Amino acid sequence: MGKKMLIAQGGGPTPVINASLAGVILEAKRHGVQAIAGIGGIEGVIQERFYDLSALSEIDILRLKNTPSSGIGSGRYKVKEEDYPRIRDVLDKHRIDYFFYNGGNDSMDTCNKVSQIAGETRVIGVAKTIDNDLALTDHCPGFGSAARYAAVTVKELGLDVRALPIHAVIIEIMGRNAGWLAASTALARDEYLSAPHLIYLPERPFIEEKFYDDVNAAQQKYGTGIVIAVSEGLTGENGKTVADSGMVDGFGHTIPGGVAQTLSTMLLQKGIKSRSEKPGLVGRVSGFLVSETDREEAFETGKRSFMAAWEGVTGFMVGFTRLSADPYKIKYELFPLSEVANEEKLIPDSMIMPDGNDVNNEFVAYAKPLIGGMVPKYFTIPYAKEFL
Amino acid sequence: MGKKMLIAQGGGPTPVINASLAGVILEAKRHGVQAIAGIGGIEGVIQERFYDLSALSEIDILRLKNTPSSGIGSGRYKVKEEDYPRIRDVLDKHRIDYFFYNGGNDSMDTCNKVSQIAGETRVIGVAKTIDNDLALTDHCPGFGSAARYAAVTVKELGLDVRALPIHAVIIEIMGRNAGWLAASTALARDEYLSAPHLIYLPERPFIEEKFYDDVNAAQQKYGTGIVIAVSEGLTGENGKTVADSGMVDGFGHTIPGGVAQTLSTMLLQKGIKSRSEKPGLVGRVSGFLVSETDREEAFETGKRSFMAAWEGVTGFMVGFTRLSADPYKIKYELFPLSEVANEEKLIPDSMIMPDGNDVNNEFVAYAKPLIGGMVPKYFTIPYAKEFL
Repeated sequence: MGKKMLIAQGGGPTPVINASLAGVILEAKRHGVQAIAGIGGIEGVIQERFYDLSALSEIDILRLKNTPSSGIGSGRYKVKEEDYPRIRDVLDKHRIDYFFYNGGNDSMDTCNKVSQIAGETRVIGVAKTIDNDLALTDHCPGFGSAARYAAVTVKELGLDVRALPIHAVIIEIMGRNAGWLAASTALARDEYLSAPHLIYLPERPFIEEKFYDDVNAAQQKYGTGIVIAVSEGLTGENGKTVADSGMVDGFGHTIPGGVAQTLSTMLLQKGIKSRSEKPGLVGRVSGFLVSETDREEAFETGKRSFMAAWEGVTGFMVGFTRLSADPYKIKYELFPLSEVANEEKLIPDSMIMPDGNDVNNEFVAYAKPLIGGMVPKYFTIPYAKEFL
Repeated sequence: MGKKMLIAQGGGPTPVINASLAGVILEAKRHGVQAIAGIGGIEGVIQERFYDLSALSEIDILRLKNTPSSGIGSGRYKVKEEDYPRIRDVLDKHRIDYFFYNGGNDSMDTCNKVSQIAGETRVIGVAKTIDNDLALTDHCPGFGSAARYAAVTVKELGLDVRALPIHAVIIEIMGRNAGWLAASTALARDEYLSAPHLIYLPERPFIEEKFYDDVNAAQQKYGTGIVIAVSEGLTGENGKTVADSGMVDGFGHTIPGGVAQTLSTMLLQKGIKSRSEKPGLVGRVSGFLVSETDREEAFETGKRSFMAAWEGVTGFMVGFTRLSADPYKIKYELFPLSEVANEEKLIPDSMIMPDGNDVNNEFVAYAKPLIGGMVPKYFTIPYAKEFL
């Protein structure tokens, strides 16, 4: 009898999560393994909402590779202890030889627990998260593309405020506890454009008085038109998120809400003209600003995840170890899910400027190769800044 | 003695306003006319903040053509009656043969008044506005690119909520009085993706009770995950903007603030899970989602504006008359500034659905050729919607 694999996707979509999915099912197809999707995350597995992916042609699979967002549906269901026996039953009942769970932190925790009760089924975690906060791996599939989006977007905002320098523009970037994405806006800078002028990360407590001082200093130096990048999960010294939506998600995590607008209102109340932008979900599904490096790594991660399971591995996640930053060189490596599960990798202190309102060159050297090529260098007419 | 031209840009940047600037100065260069920029809008003219563009090579000018935002700085200064004699003095003092003002509604009004007092100087308005609300012309340079951004962004949000259908996502689209841009999100739809599920325009009063009914009906039909596009200038039956920032700009226009967040909060208070996104300024300076049709038309508009002035025309604006929608065919035409000035072209009733929460095929046929090619058709796995 032929072998079968089951795959599900968990948590927020990314621009390249389907590249990993495509990698897994392409290898399955090539090895004669029937690929089945659990639709809508782990809940789809529990409830046997299955879709047979075998009908997809190789061309379909390659189109899927280039489609942002989670192609088989995702979910935010928090698995309960009593769900694990049920998951085991489902895997047994359908004689699943290989189970893949394609997700971030919470999903790797779930995946680890499934691996411990899965019996004969081999279980592999397929990493994805725009937040870049998974432990052990150098970086995570999905991060490079969302970072590219953040950097390009802030560069273009920089062009806008250069042209019309009438306000401080605050842009909210995804990231609850880890500021990797907000930090990536530093990649927008070149010799012509200085945006972002300030970057606030959840790794540092947000202090209102210091914020006003920072903004005043930046406007003294660069003029009225400045761009400020802030992580959505920005937290005060009291440990509370600066902009709390008052809601929690299925995992009990607070859903942050509108930090950019909150900060913008703070500035307006101090008489500093300001406005806020929040691309929000757009930044995690932009197909136009995908990092090709990220997409190929995500695809390769999927393929290697299948191959690991095929070769007998279980309870591991495929990740990256960086061999060299310039030229950029990584090797793929298997990390134990038990060590990855529910650890959060924050930006190390060594990458954050002492003032806590920017990142340094160590961060830039780390992140630059991941975004898959340069952020565009736009042509700017070198008129004197005093003119505006 | 050689001839001289002066150009300034007014109002909000667009992704292709520099294509028009490039068109004007390229023709000037080819005709041996010295091109000077007034930096930072009409105020730059009044204050003689001049920059000599003659030093730009043709290659620089073509790079400028591909750079979003206003390359010579823009402004929101409202010209006072007493400024016009001063403008006349500046034009005389510097012996300006041709004056170009590259802007939207307010700028065309200013340009019209300048043309009436400019003496020997020939004055041409170079149309630009993402809002598409200039009178007489079929459409405006800048609109097609911002419309492409809006449509692609909503399509990608549609992929996100298809994958994770846990909320109604409200996206705020620029547009104060005219809903052309919000309406353009209708171009996101194809046979696989139904987003946006609702579109709210400033051309119709916003009625809270009807909004809840609309959202309920859409969620009944499409599931929990829906995308709602709203114009930033959405206004209630009482004539007040739904989300008033409490601020006015230099022209006395109210600055709308956060309508998507306001609507999202309304839904949350009714127990409907919702979140809001606001790309804001990002949508008017995205270099990645430029419509090539729009960019070429903006460039050609610039060239023809110069040629009109060169050939003796004054007090006119170059615009478009549509000869055919499919195949798309326009002709360039000169419209009198006196007729364009301060008129606002709203979406005609014939393009809006009777329910006021969508646009019809007449709108789609109008807007489709302007966005410069198809919005991408992403590959979606056809699992049953009931699975999610």
